[in-house]
Amino acid sequence: MNVKVIAFDADDTLWVNEPYFRDTEEKFCSMFGEYLSQHNIERELLQTEIKNLSLYGYGIKGFTLSMIEAAINITSGRLSTEATERILALGKEMLNRPVELLEDVEQVLQALQPHYRLVVATKGDLLDQERKLKKSGLAHYFHHIEIMSEKDEASYQKLIRHLDIQPQELVMIGNSLKSDILPVLQIGGHAIHVPYHTTWIHEMIDSQVEHENFKSVDRIQEVLPYLLSNN
Amino acid sequence: MNVKVIAFDADDTLWVNEPYFRDTEEKFCSMFGEYLSQHNIERELLQTEIKNLSLYGYGIKGFTLSMIEAAINITSGRLSTEATERILALGKEMLNRPVELLEDVEQVLQALQPHYRLVVATKGDLLDQERKLKKSGLAHYFHHIEIMSEKDEASYQKLIRHLDIQPQELVMIGNSLKSDILPVLQIGGHAIHVPYHTTWIHEMIDSQVEHENFKSVDRIQEVLPYLLSNN
Repeated sequence: MNVKVIAFDADDTLWVNEPYFRDTEEKFCSMFGEYLSQHNIERELLQTEIKNLSLYGYGIKGFTLSMIEAAINITSGRLSTEATERILALGKEMLNRPVELLEDVEQVLQALQPHYRLVVATKGDLLDQERKLKKSGLAHYFHHIEIMSEKDEASYQKLIRHLDIQPQELVMIGNSLKSDILPVLQIGGHAIHVPYHTTWIHEMIDSQVEHENFKSVDRIQEVLPYLLSNN
Repeated sequence: MNVKVIAFDADDTLWVNEPYFRDTEEKFCSMFGEYLSQHNIERELLQTEIKNLSLYGYGIKGFTLSMIEAAINITSGRLSTEATERILALGKEMLNRPVELLEDVEQVLQALQPHYRLVVATKGDLLDQERKLKKSGLAHYFHHIEIMSEKDEASYQKLIRHLDIQPQELVMIGNSLKSDILPVLQIGGHAIHVPYHTTWIHEMIDSQVEHENFKSVDRIQEVLPYLLSNN
């Protein structure tokens, strides 16, 4: 293995993200309990999000717009101004949340930085991801930040060209098999899966991954013996 | 002049943008004529946008959220669901609009491409700007697309490092003195201003620009004799 660059997913790999969406979803559900069951509210919201994904992309602003749209449907067009205001406030709360680093992330970056170029490869709103990286205090570990509108093979190929490396010189570390692992293996890179306890249903895949360039670990610090012994 | 890279602003330099915001603002104003004068509606909307800019950044999704927030204030908390729906629809219409190239843009890119590396340097929503570039049919002219959360000196310095050039090897072409011209001159680059008839008030500056690396032209094809004679 002749790895030059280690790319980290950000949300739910470096810091907490999905639980904040779940918190907000719970608050959203509790606003409309008189109209529908929690299950049906969640379903309506998810369907609205997925319908809008190609237009809005990932991130909190699109999520907020989808919450408002879903709320209009949930209330059969009787959405109160107070509820609309509350949804806008929920979105702003999410944007303003402090960044909570996941366990051992900083030690892992510290240990790897002398040996590899480290980059962040994430999707979501541009400004929001930049702000989180700044708030995280981790920015100085990274050589480059790539914010992608979609984490597919084409985006990883672009990243590789940009970094001026071969696919097999990249290791991607992340929590989403669909976004962080499969497209990277597909283009010839290495990938390490660090599962997180909460995953958005849209990121879930059914299949098991088996590939010679693939590894799965339970906690992020387990990448160290693997990546440092091969260095 | 030893220029290697020519960077183009996108919105209102390569294609129509600000008039679409103005159209939408007009439609927004006409929805709330019973509450406030057009002037006061516009003022409320602008104030809301500027207040939210540091949180939402530039782009249509943040604009749509600000329209909803402004509408709540304009109606003193009596915003109807129909009006909220209409605002969401206005946002989606903007995201779905076809891309309308400005006059002579393609000829200019064609003429410059054999001589320079061409890049796009724009702000706004990541997915939306990528989609517009794709729809424009211009993507193949560009070596690199930089989507920035803010067009300030630090962002242009990052672009220059990324392109592996010296500041004086860059020419930036754009319609906003504040975003496309001043920060580029400040870091030692060249800048050509191509004014557009409609400019967002937040992008306007009072002062006149005088600088040895600065040029202003009335129409984009006027950059050609200047850039090709120096090549």
